[in-house]
Amino acid sequence: MAEQQQPAKKQRTHPPYELLYHPGIPGRGEFVRLAFEVAGVPYADIANEDKDGGGYSTVQEICMNKNTTSDDGTNPPIFSPPALRVPGAGRDGKAVVISQTPNILSYLGGRLGLVPEEGEEGRFYVQQIALTALDLNDEVHDTHHPIAVMKYYEEQKEEALKKAEDVRENRIPKYLSYFERQLQWNREVGKGKFLVGDKITYADTTVWQVLDGISFAFPNEIEMRRKEFKELFQFYDDLKEEKGIKEYLASERRLPYSMGIFRHYPELDRQ
Amino acid sequence: MAEQQQPAKKQRTHPPYELLYHPGIPGRGEFVRLAFEVAGVPYADIANEDKDGGGYSTVQEICMNKNTTSDDGTNPPIFSPPALRVPGAGRDGKAVVISQTPNILSYLGGRLGLVPEEGEEGRFYVQQIALTALDLNDEVHDTHHPIAVMKYYEEQKEEALKKAEDVRENRIPKYLSYFERQLQWNREVGKGKFLVGDKITYADTTVWQVLDGISFAFPNEIEMRRKEFKELFQFYDDLKEEKGIKEYLASERRLPYSMGIFRHYPELDRQ
Repeated sequence: MAEQQQPAKKQRTHPPYELLYHPGIPGRGEFVRLAFEVAGVPYADIANEDKDGGGYSTVQEICMNKNTTSDDGTNPPIFSPPALRVPGAGRDGKAVVISQTPNILSYLGGRLGLVPEEGEEGRFYVQQIALTALDLNDEVHDTHHPIAVMKYYEEQKEEALKKAEDVRENRIPKYLSYFERQLQWNREVGKGKFLVGDKITYADTTVWQVLDGISFAFPNEIEMRRKEFKELFQFYDDLKEEKGIKEYLASERRLPYSMGIFRHYPELDRQ
Repeated sequence: MAEQQQPAKKQRTHPPYELLYHPGIPGRGEFVRLAFEVAGVPYADIANEDKDGGGYSTVQEICMNKNTTSDDGTNPPIFSPPALRVPGAGRDGKAVVISQTPNILSYLGGRLGLVPEEGEEGRFYVQQIALTALDLNDEVHDTHHPIAVMKYYEEQKEEALKKAEDVRENRIPKYLSYFERQLQWNREVGKGKFLVGDKITYADTTVWQVLDGISFAFPNEIEMRRKEFKELFQFYDDLKEEKGIKEYLASERRLPYSMGIFRHYPELDRQ
């Protein structure tokens, strides 16, 4: 594996986690990266760290094949990246390989200290918020690909204009209202800084990433929505300064948006 | 609460679970219903069982509001149904209310005996399969509503024709291939009857429901795909005979498809 450049703030009591995802874009891998980064726990971003050494080949071999296993039979097949590989965590010292972004976050939540420690229900609150943020993530993806994910944007631009209008005008405010009300529900313990409890969880990082992505995709729209959802965007601004996040955002590990889920097509934004 | 009509095969050691969902359609509530039914654990389907007594009003009060809580402050707001209410399971004897279909299934999995008992990784395998089936569920929904969920099908029929073609020709086979390979991965212990382990899990019921829904929505397409994915549709046919499922499918609790997620518009099917 490639040399790891992540911060190692905590004592290394973790397995050598591996993120398996496409290189060069934040994408759905970003939700997993943010969890590691805010926790200060090292991970190998296989495709990005080992560009010349075949990192992406490893991702493709494990996550993008037509096999009946993701490896040697130990783990089941993967529908699509991202996946998390945890060497030594499975039976007989083998690796565990799991996929689906919210599933990966659920697996890591307790291990990285990104769920409330007390009360089982807190874990389910965190997961339901993350799942909802990931639903918004998918809806925003569909603004530029409403018809077919394998076709070019230019081939579905007419439909994209209609879809983007609906997502901006109806769906985004519905989600933002929900996230803000969650913040308000937790205000007494979270002080407006956290969605669940009094410490950062992967609900915070996941909602933050979607807010960041839609701010990139629809700058005009979000500029207007900022006035409507002041508490939520205060949370968004504050989280950029959080330990772990601030250093990450300033690092080369934070990849720029380009042709992934969040794309800036000015014609799809509020005019 | 309304009288419960569900089978009570096992000793009642469960709380009085409540499913909060829209009345009259299978929808996303069906994934939760199937889990209870196959486990033989009673639950109250609030909106369907208490039609005259305001069951749906209860659902709306808890899950479809603009409040900063889903109840009295104990539980956070809900983005949309389905939700699960578990009286007495929260702090100080209060109820726990959680939402998001895969999150509800995760909560119920261990409690209803619908995840593998040994090995933590089995739970994550089950969840990743359920999440993937629910992704297909969403994609199929979008075949009749590719532009705007709040508009009529007739207003987006032209786009729906294009979307449905892509979902039928590219997405459905990709998902079916994955589910069949999962079945093959588990063949040695599951004997072609279960996706993970040697007992039924909520991965099985969730994949089954999506297969059932797409068979209703696209009968021509699925008739053809049956030949391509023989093992998967054998699993589908066999599961209808499983204890708990068979009785449920013959009962009045199993609602017919109509204007929900799975709709049969002949023009969207293979011609």
